[in-house]
Amino acid sequence: MDTTVRNLGECRIDTPMPGRIHMNLDHKRFVTDDMKILVDETIEALTARGANVSDAPAFERAGARAKIFFDPHDLKVGIVTCGGLCPGINNVIAGLVDEMTNLYGVSHYVGYQYGYQGLVGNQPTVDLTTIDLQAIRSQGGSILGTSRGNQDPVVIVDTLVRDGISILFVIGGDGTMRGAEALCLEITKRNLPIAVVCIPKTIDNDVPLIDHSFGFQTAFTEAARAISAGYVEATASRGGISLIKLMGRYSGFIACFAALAETSADFVLIPEVSFEIDGKGGFLEHLEERMREHDYAVIVVAEGAGQEHFAEVKDLDASGNKKLADIGGLLRDRIQAHFKSINYPITLRNIDPSYAIRSVEANSYDSVYCLQLAQSAVHAAMAGKTGVVVGQFRRRFVHIPVELLNHETNQVNPNGDLWWSVLENTGQPAHFGA
Amino acid sequence: MDTTVRNLGECRIDTPMPGRIHMNLDHKRFVTDDMKILVDETIEALTARGANVSDAPAFERAGARAKIFFDPHDLKVGIVTCGGLCPGINNVIAGLVDEMTNLYGVSHYVGYQYGYQGLVGNQPTVDLTTIDLQAIRSQGGSILGTSRGNQDPVVIVDTLVRDGISILFVIGGDGTMRGAEALCLEITKRNLPIAVVCIPKTIDNDVPLIDHSFGFQTAFTEAARAISAGYVEATASRGGISLIKLMGRYSGFIACFAALAETSADFVLIPEVSFEIDGKGGFLEHLEERMREHDYAVIVVAEGAGQEHFAEVKDLDASGNKKLADIGGLLRDRIQAHFKSINYPITLRNIDPSYAIRSVEANSYDSVYCLQLAQSAVHAAMAGKTGVVVGQFRRRFVHIPVELLNHETNQVNPNGDLWWSVLENTGQPAHFGA
Amino acid sequence: MDTTVRNLGECRIDTPMPGRIHMNLDHKRFVTDDMKILVDETIEALTARGANVSDAPAFERAGARAKIFFDPHDLKVGIVTCGGLCPGINNVIAGLVDEMTNLYGVSHYVGYQYGYQGLVGNQPTVDLTTIDLQAIRSQGGSILGTSRGNQDPVVIVDTLVRDGISILFVIGGDGTMRGAEALCLEITKRNLPIAVVCIPKTIDNDVPLIDHSFGFQTAFTEAARAISAGYVEATASRGGISLIKLMGRYSGFIACFAALAETSADFVLIPEVSFEIDGKGGFLEHLEERMREHDYAVIVVAEGAGQEHFAEVKDLDASGNKKLADIGGLLRDRIQAHFKSINYPITLRNIDPSYAIRSVEANSYDSVYCLQLAQSAVHAAMAGKTGVVVGQFRRRFVHIPVELLNHETNQVNPNGDLWWSVLENTGQPAHFGA
Amino acid sequence: MDTTVRNLGECRIDTPMPGRIHMNLDHKRFVTDDMKILVDETIEALTARGANVSDAPAFERAGARAKIFFDPHDLKVGIVTCGGLCPGINNVIAGLVDEMTNLYGVSHYVGYQYGYQGLVGNQPTVDLTTIDLQAIRSQGGSILGTSRGNQDPVVIVDTLVRDGISILFVIGGDGTMRGAEALCLEITKRNLPIAVVCIPKTIDNDVPLIDHSFGFQTAFTEAARAISAGYVEATASRGGISLIKLMGRYSGFIACFAALAETSADFVLIPEVSFEIDGKGGFLEHLEERMREHDYAVIVVAEGAGQEHFAEVKDLDASGNKKLADIGGLLRDRIQAHFKSINYPITLRNIDPSYAIRSVEANSYDSVYCLQLAQSAVHAAMAGKTGVVVGQFRRRFVHIPVELLNHETNQVNPNGDLWWSVLENTGQPAHFGA
Repeated sequence: MDTTVRNLGECRIDTPMPGRIHMNLDHKRFVTDDMKILVDETIEALTARGANVSDAPAFERAGARAKIFFDPHDLKVGIVTCGGLCPGINNVIAGLVDEMTNLYGVSHYVGYQYGYQGLVGNQPTVDLTTIDLQAIRSQGGSILGTSRGNQDPVVIVDTLVRDGISILFVIGGDGTMRGAEALCLEITKRNLPIAVVCIPKTIDNDVPLIDHSFGFQTAFTEAARAISAGYVEATASRGGISLIKLMGRYSGFIACFAALAETSADFVLIPEVSFEIDGKGGFLEHLEERMREHDYAVIVVAEGAGQEHFAEVKDLDASGNKKLADIGGLLRDRIQAHFKSINYPITLRNIDPSYAIRSVEANSYDSVYCLQLAQSAVHAAMAGKTGVVVGQFRRRFVHIPVELLNHETNQVNPNGDLWWSVLENTGQPAHFGA
Repeated sequence: MDTTVRNLGECRIDTPMPGRIHMNLDHKRFVTDDMKILVDETIEALTARGANVSDAPAFERAGARAKIFFDPHDLKVGIVTCGGLCPGINNVIAGLVDEMTNLYGVSHYVGYQYGYQGLVGNQPTVDLTTIDLQAIRSQGGSILGTSRGNQDPVVIVDTLVRDGISILFVIGGDGTMRGAEALCLEITKRNLPIAVVCIPKTIDNDVPLIDHSFGFQTAFTEAARAISAGYVEATASRGGISLIKLMGRYSGFIACFAALAETSADFVLIPEVSFEIDGKGGFLEHLEERMREHDYAVIVVAEGAGQEHFAEVKDLDASGNKKLADIGGLLRDRIQAHFKSINYPITLRNIDPSYAIRSVEANSYDSVYCLQLAQSAVHAAMAGKTGVVVGQFRRRFVHIPVELLNHETNQVNPNGDLWWSVLENTGQPAHFGA
Repeated sequence: MDTTVRNLGECRIDTPMPGRIHMNLDHKRFVTDDMKILVDETIEALTARGANVSDAPAFERAGARAKIFFDPHDLKVGIVTCGGLCPGINNVIAGLVDEMTNLYGVSHYVGYQYGYQGLVGNQPTVDLTTIDLQAIRSQGGSILGTSRGNQDPVVIVDTLVRDGISILFVIGGDGTMRGAEALCLEITKRNLPIAVVCIPKTIDNDVPLIDHSFGFQTAFTEAARAISAGYVEATASRGGISLIKLMGRYSGFIACFAALAETSADFVLIPEVSFEIDGKGGFLEHLEERMREHDYAVIVVAEGAGQEHFAEVKDLDASGNKKLADIGGLLRDRIQAHFKSINYPITLRNIDPSYAIRSVEANSYDSVYCLQLAQSAVHAAMAGKTGVVVGQFRRRFVHIPVELLNHETNQVNPNGDLWWSVLENTGQPAHFGA
Repeated sequence: MDTTVRNLGECRIDTPMPGRIHMNLDHKRFVTDDMKILVDETIEALTARGANVSDAPAFERAGARAKIFFDPHDLKVGIVTCGGLCPGINNVIAGLVDEMTNLYGVSHYVGYQYGYQGLVGNQPTVDLTTIDLQAIRSQGGSILGTSRGNQDPVVIVDTLVRDGISILFVIGGDGTMRGAEALCLEITKRNLPIAVVCIPKTIDNDVPLIDHSFGFQTAFTEAARAISAGYVEATASRGGISLIKLMGRYSGFIACFAALAETSADFVLIPEVSFEIDGKGGFLEHLEERMREHDYAVIVVAEGAGQEHFAEVKDLDASGNKKLADIGGLLRDRIQAHFKSINYPITLRNIDPSYAIRSVEANSYDSVYCLQLAQSAVHAAMAGKTGVVVGQFRRRFVHIPVELLNHETNQVNPNGDLWWSVLENTGQPAHFGA
């Protein structure tokens, strides 16, 4: 694993931080590039790498550098937000502008609108100096707007050059990160001193390596409310079954965490663990057993679960993701058919809280996390780091080369602590099927 | 308007309240049946009634009586909850049991389950003396469960007699109230000393006469969150349109109050005000105008709005209500078709928070209101009032004969303050159409 | 009771509303000054007034008039907020500016800062046209700032004349209303066409006549959280006693409503009901009895309760209110002394959530209420009403001459429904003492 | 660092888990004692340990073992909660009982009340099988009650033996952990097969080694509300200064995180960073500068900050902690004196939300965390681990010998990321003083 972060060049400029918060340039606080956090967490993993521990892969620590690459004076900074909504985007934007302005004295910003689309052609931009940063911190969504899909990196770089941008902060998901990688290649090709620093955003928490993505705690908190509603509804009717569909294309993190937060789900179905619906030991058999015992059930299903029950889908959405087949609809139909066939009256309710989850304001934890990510991103950018993602890795803020994120997806480990917490708490079988 | 409340008989028993809260039986607090609240609020209405003001219709005040009808000793009390969920049901149940137990010394309760179904046949019941009343006050739903639809009053009265019930508290909506009226007729026919006291429950706030139904404030608070989500989503996309469907079969109260709470809706459509969709001055024309100006729009539609655009539906649901045609689906299709036809790209999102709204716990205001309704219901029942609804009328708790509620529906007045607050705030036209 | 509202003059100008929301000038919606809401709610009160019912006192209904007094063109409007904080002030400000701008086309505003102080001398003002009205609706406090105390009406009127103000909206409490009355006298003396319209603000809900003051529901919701904390603390310790001090100088509304919302208080002490501390039947005897039974207790005390236990205080605060003696401190000391004297170990905790209550953002209900008050105030002002308060009276928005509010205080009726709900729920004695 | 965890003996019994969640005994999920997480996170730290990486200290992973020590049949389990309140205690209790019952089939529990006091003498206990575990998960506090202070380990072990307890779960803070260490020594001395497993609880987040203590996120979320209230109050008055005192005896974590969550604090004072009050560069000078610029300020102070400004305190509280001098009172007095001396009128408000913070229910994140801690504790106990603490270490659940926690305190690193996030965000000087 090549954890080397690319630098635009040597850092020769004294950081202006000391003048702003009354400190010295030789303060122990400053981070140097050789401070690194080990990738491996076990002796086995570490020794399996080979004889020389001192070569073990490790991520560069994020944080303020004593010497920086860019002269803050006249520096022009762009920000763009891409992909679906997620709690905390505005907190990141506010954090970036606050930190650039107050710590480094930057004063020129360009807010590109509606994702990469805003970097193509002659689009209107947002003047970030007139925004009430404190106010947007308690607003969901993105004041810059978003869109899905990438744009031609050549055209984007033309825009950056035209606008005189030296630093571009990119807030977006896996598709966006792939776009950022392409962007960096184009910038390198032209040998331009433009830093591209990414803050990964995904409501599914499917970004690899990092501890969790921003907004995730807020998201599963809101998802837990939907499970709670499902529980109340299910228990209030004879034969009540609530089917709560949550986000999670490839990763069941929201489903798992929300279920653990509420502890009232009887079944949690996630993309990482396939399941039989019919037959001996299948989902319907277990559901029937549950109903015969309690006369109600709460089922949480991630949108990407059970795709093995559908013919392969070829359509792609604007982000380039495969469109998912409707597992919620399938389960609803199969459950209704099953209980009709055994003459067991049920009241099935479908609950889909997706938009509520995406659009809420960040909770206190995510507010802190977004701020710290923004601070780390600013320090990285000012030091001339590029093609880099800032993230928390085992509770340390680090720099990760964007390429390392683009070929993997963070998923719930079917043998790991999280999934087993779910199994132990719901009591659902570890395996649906014969 | 005959506001006379029926009494089971003369109240001859001293209330046991004094011994419980250290007061005297002649305390000024006690309410007498001749304390009444005028139905009319204007001089015009009052004088239009005729010459004699002293005969003007007025509602009996609720509250503790010095003399009561039932001997609390050995009294057995039934509670049943019917219809859809609504915030506050458990608070009412807790309030009833608390008040009966602590103020009057009652100790026998039967909790009938799943609505009137629980009063038919030999159904299991809930022992309300083992319930943690403080805990259920912060739980949505109904610990007794609910169901829709009435049952044969003859069979229900048989059950009450079998179980030795002297007081039945009925928590339910308009269908339930009609059932309670039938029940009272049957009880009267048999000349039984059984009091039936109703606490009206409707998430749509469509009960006539009373100020508002319990749980309504909680409900529109939750609905306002959905509008907020819709606003965040709409503004974050190019051409973003959010269509939020809220409850309200015949009454647009939730839609109106939620829209006023959030102040980000551009259009509010309610059952009480019909509207043209197409043509000059129609909804689509105004929506297009709005989009051309701001490039986003938030539309709030009550489920019962725009039924004039559908052929009449004949199907009834279990509560005996006409099934509604899907106005949300119609608008979605028409909006998409319209903007496609003019080549204006939009991103339309449907948001339906119904289950979240029904199942949340009561907020502080509704907790107080439910408690006071329960206290009023208990006082009424102990005084032998029957066929009576307790409710707040112009901020006073009163007794209303159940018949008065059964032939009317509370609706938003298209010339009244509420609807005009909405028009003034959204800026939408008072009239959609030519 | 003279309910006559003063008008600056005849209304001769057509309201511009029709052009803004597509309606006709002869729409049934428009309110006329002869639409009035009866002050009395009982036949007894009404007939006690004398023979002629048509002369019974009644309040003019608020709402849009077809003809208005002021020409919106070039109209200049001032807003000032006075007294302590209360949830909803910013919602009122936003509602005023929104309504003036969007319904009437007004475009000139002066936001006076820090209460009446901002109207004296050459103070900086806030440009209300640059404020993000949607954003401030979710912010507690007042964007204009507040201060206590009145200023010389002569000087204030000089300022209004200097600034060319035609309408002054005053948001404030009882002291502020008295100031507004003086202001109107001075304006009348000079025969100036300046309208002064008040929106009463008091966190204690002590404004007479109106249903309740804005922000009150939000306030007691927050207060209920403190009671809940007190309950949790009290029950978690041996001999736990929590003493929660809530606002309420002369009125115990917050204490009563918060206690009913939480239902875990054992004792509620309010200014309206005096109580013995010592001796037979005194508070300490009942508290001891409670402790011996449950080993914990939750006591809610309004700051103005029990002032009879102190020598009279002569000091006044900046608002001209008598400084209150510290009943919380007295009770704490007396409780500790008592239980020490009987050798009963207790853990007493004092909880004072005042600032949290004052500063939270308005909840959904209060947001609606503030908006409707603001809309009513704007209609009143445009119609040239002056010296008038807008408020909800028995659920109708009405105009009340400011003088009618200035000689009374709204208090909890010791024989009324609210206080008895508290007694019935807590089980505390109706009378502390022999 | 000796990370060896003590076992009561060999694990010879097959875990009953497979029968309960349909899995095999050889499932890859099961954890073995040799799976360990490295203590060090950097190459430098690791190599500094010496030549042999395979001996590097590492913590045993928590999680279900295939073989267990105790036979669940007839096993009797005790639970005790000690020290101050903290969000999540009831979630841990519910999680322990749920997991023991549903995964292992345990059915005998003893809930000791009011901390270690409940284990001394013949105290009443709580029957945990009758508790509504789902209901207590949304209740703050501890259903078992708590108290401070340790008790004689000899007497406690006598109680455990008398009651036939095989596993004791101890939920408590640093004092409690020291008590648990003593308890284990006594158990070892008597050679008893009793496992003591601890879940560390501290609202200050001052437990060393673990990522954070349960309830911490909930706590700083609530603390952030107090800062928000302080900000609203400060900005609403001329010369408004809000002084918010937060918990944190030796550690400023709550103060730091709450300040970052709200981003409206101007100064954050914590125990880890001493500060000058007077003189050149002192706190008052900076505060004055801030006031002259903005005319308001928000100050957050941890209760243990600035103890260097007091003569040493000798008094200990019941937990054996030194009583802290009142830094809030000192700052209030000094600030008032200073601004009086320079004739600058201020309005200073003290806000102390401590009880609100301690007693709230756990948020969704902490609910999950408490559940996972409980599950880990149960697995550890069933495997016969003793004298062990379960905690999350770099996002892995591990077993830590209790001794390792008892000689250290987790503190904010004055050169670390957290403190510098605060400095960068507030803009306060890194050093107060000349």
